[in-house]
Amino acid sequence: MDFVIIGGDAAGMSAASRAKRHNPELNVTVLEKTRDVSYSACGMPYNIADPNRDIEELVVRRAEVFREKQGIHLLTGHCVHRLDPREKVVSGTAPNGDAFAVSYDKLLVATGASAIIPDLPGFDLPGVMALKSLEEGRAIKEYIRSRPIKKVVIVGMGYIALEMCETLRSLGLAVDMVKPREVFLPWMEEKLAGVVRHEVETHGVDLHLGQRINEIQAHGDRLQVICDDMQVDGDLVLVAIGVKPNSGFVAEAGVELGMQGSIAVDRLLQTSDENIFAAGDCADAYHVVTGRKTWIPLALRANRAGWAAADNVCGKSVSLDGVAGTAVFRVFNLEVARTGLNSQEARDAGFEPVQVVIQSRSRAHAHPGSTAIHVQMVADRASGRLLGAQMVGAEGCAHRINATAVALHCQMTVDGFAQTDLAYAPPFGPVWDPLLTAANQLLKKLG
Amino acid sequence: MDFVIIGGDAAGMSAASRAKRHNPELNVTVLEKTRDVSYSACGMPYNIADPNRDIEELVVRRAEVFREKQGIHLLTGHCVHRLDPREKVVSGTAPNGDAFAVSYDKLLVATGASAIIPDLPGFDLPGVMALKSLEEGRAIKEYIRSRPIKKVVIVGMGYIALEMCETLRSLGLAVDMVKPREVFLPWMEEKLAGVVRHEVETHGVDLHLGQRINEIQAHGDRLQVICDDMQVDGDLVLVAIGVKPNSGFVAEAGVELGMQGSIAVDRLLQTSDENIFAAGDCADAYHVVTGRKTWIPLALRANRAGWAAADNVCGKSVSLDGVAGTAVFRVFNLEVARTGLNSQEARDAGFEPVQVVIQSRSRAHAHPGSTAIHVQMVADRASGRLLGAQMVGAEGCAHRINATAVALHCQMTVDGFAQTDLAYAPPFGPVWDPLLTAANQLLKKLG
Repeated sequence: MDFVIIGGDAAGMSAASRAKRHNPELNVTVLEKTRDVSYSACGMPYNIADPNRDIEELVVRRAEVFREKQGIHLLTGHCVHRLDPREKVVSGTAPNGDAFAVSYDKLLVATGASAIIPDLPGFDLPGVMALKSLEEGRAIKEYIRSRPIKKVVIVGMGYIALEMCETLRSLGLAVDMVKPREVFLPWMEEKLAGVVRHEVETHGVDLHLGQRINEIQAHGDRLQVICDDMQVDGDLVLVAIGVKPNSGFVAEAGVELGMQGSIAVDRLLQTSDENIFAAGDCADAYHVVTGRKTWIPLALRANRAGWAAADNVCGKSVSLDGVAGTAVFRVFNLEVARTGLNSQEARDAGFEPVQVVIQSRSRAHAHPGSTAIHVQMVADRASGRLLGAQMVGAEGCAHRINATAVALHCQMTVDGFAQTDLAYAPPFGPVWDPLLTAANQLLKKLG
Repeated sequence: MDFVIIGGDAAGMSAASRAKRHNPELNVTVLEKTRDVSYSACGMPYNIADPNRDIEELVVRRAEVFREKQGIHLLTGHCVHRLDPREKVVSGTAPNGDAFAVSYDKLLVATGASAIIPDLPGFDLPGVMALKSLEEGRAIKEYIRSRPIKKVVIVGMGYIALEMCETLRSLGLAVDMVKPREVFLPWMEEKLAGVVRHEVETHGVDLHLGQRINEIQAHGDRLQVICDDMQVDGDLVLVAIGVKPNSGFVAEAGVELGMQGSIAVDRLLQTSDENIFAAGDCADAYHVVTGRKTWIPLALRANRAGWAAADNVCGKSVSLDGVAGTAVFRVFNLEVARTGLNSQEARDAGFEPVQVVIQSRSRAHAHPGSTAIHVQMVADRASGRLLGAQMVGAEGCAHRINATAVALHCQMTVDGFAQTDLAYAPPFGPVWDPLLTAANQLLKKLG
């Protein structure tokens, strides 16, 4: 059987390796459009922050290992343009410019997502860069290394924008951040978002919110981002306004799309075509809280879905529960974490959200070094079900959020969650874990 | 109605405050045998470590506040010796030596637990000390402050012994630890226990296992702990071999005892006498994994049970699910965490335990500062249910264990847990959280 995989990063290479482990006789072909496979994209901001580290360190397993040790037919520089589901053939362009075509019995689309670049004048200028692929990371690192850069403008204020603003500040660069919406971290509860915003501004970053961007102009070596009311210039412009799924040729082939242009898959990772699977940032998923489809492109799901797709291709039926929307990032000295729905998302999903926002401490009463932990927690009034939580603090947020994530998978009520036996020792938290304090407050509000 | 509470620490004062909040008209009397109420006992090792901090900082709320602001009739120095359930009277000795007697309609026994002191020669010598009550903590701190102490012998190697060994080393004191059993941390998986043992020994602590202790002798200012094969001396001997529930007068009154001499309570915290409740370290609890009774005296349960007892006394029926046996402590640079059952406990409870021990990392691939995280995870072969986990590492264990604790409350299978959407960002862990790697390995072993 020919198992063809388009895309050689997290989902694709996880699937390829797993399929070969299940069935060494299987012909597994991977078509990757860049020269890079199996790398830690999320590690790029931290690698770029350290001029002494080679960006190639982010490669988890080299192409030769997949080819020679694992017997995977891995073709880099192979860009797929077309999918013919009736003939079961994918075709595209090889590195030398020649056309190629490959037949499949089972196909896995693991094409990932790409940075969104606005269709506005100047966004194609040299020095206007994005950060999603390792190629882009390599280009940014090289750009900073080889030029006397002093100042960067970041367009966007999401996870990657904030991680990169920390990176750039640590390199001694001035950073301006600009975005069209008035609200900083719109998915985050207002008070918690304010704590994050304060942290960013305290680290000398200039934030410009509510600024519609019209174009980027080059003035000699400088780039100028022109907004409605202002302009801001830098030696480099990082565009980090979000990502979009790479699903174009799949949609053209008639495969059904789901949320936000991602490829619709069932719990077996199967698309509307029974021979085509999709996994990773290009595919959608079920949300364990709403039971509905969502599109949350994150690394763990990509790896997990790659495995599950390979399992199903190899006849070992595996059904994925879905995602809880758990995410965490660090920005300067803060850990920022979320899982599940915020109040607006809860309302949109038909729940009647009841929310609390509490402030607790990262260590016990009278324990030195304690810092504030802010928790938002939301539940459904009718059912008492826990729907989501957000946390911000200098310590103790990144891993704590997982307790709530597990509770969401189990459809736990706030009452049930408030009874959980969470760990306590003075260096690690108060007797009542901040999540339990939030749950206790929420219980009162639920009445 | 007269609500009388015996014991003024976590469970007792939580109950008193809660009852007064529910019903300000209620007569709430607390009888506390020491002069201390409402303090963070778990914080004592960290307070003792800092000569510049007053041990009174550990008091969370002072007696006057309970009396004056909350209207609680709080009597310190009142030691209860006798309980008459038929007459509904408790009696004992007041600070001036006079006898007292108090009638109740509802009684809460929140007498806590005391350090076990072996009935052997010399354990009553000056300088042989234990650490459970604030009085004992105050005495130890004062003993160290006022004498030219150079060396301490700790009898026992449990949580408190290890926390205190860190404290004493940080004060520049030499520490020997001695215990009769051959096995270091017998409840912990062997490999993980070895990591902890190595950490302790690396910090210059001499461990003597398998040494039966026969007596303690005083030689001038020095104390000598005499074992079968050796003797070890110090300026202070800390006895930390465990605690026992303070349930003597309750048992004498005919109230039913449960596990290890603790007071048997149902999910409403009610004892075998419908007017008598028990909460905190003196009472037992249901284990959420086995469904059976257990006795695990820890602070969160004490606080929670105090609240629940007060709720039930005030007619707001609250049923507690039980404990998962979640516990964490720090020893030098390690976080040590556990929840649920170990393999032996699982076997004893009638499960067929299947266990994995894995080693993962605290940060992502190629992220600087990453350290080892060791995880043990155990499941039941027949049902696939997750039964427990243990973790050891320099970072990322104390809060991570909570995800497993929540899974235990939900009776999750390993399969279900392996699908949970846990947080990922490079500074905080690998893409596959160490707990998920353990669960994936365990799934393979379960077949």
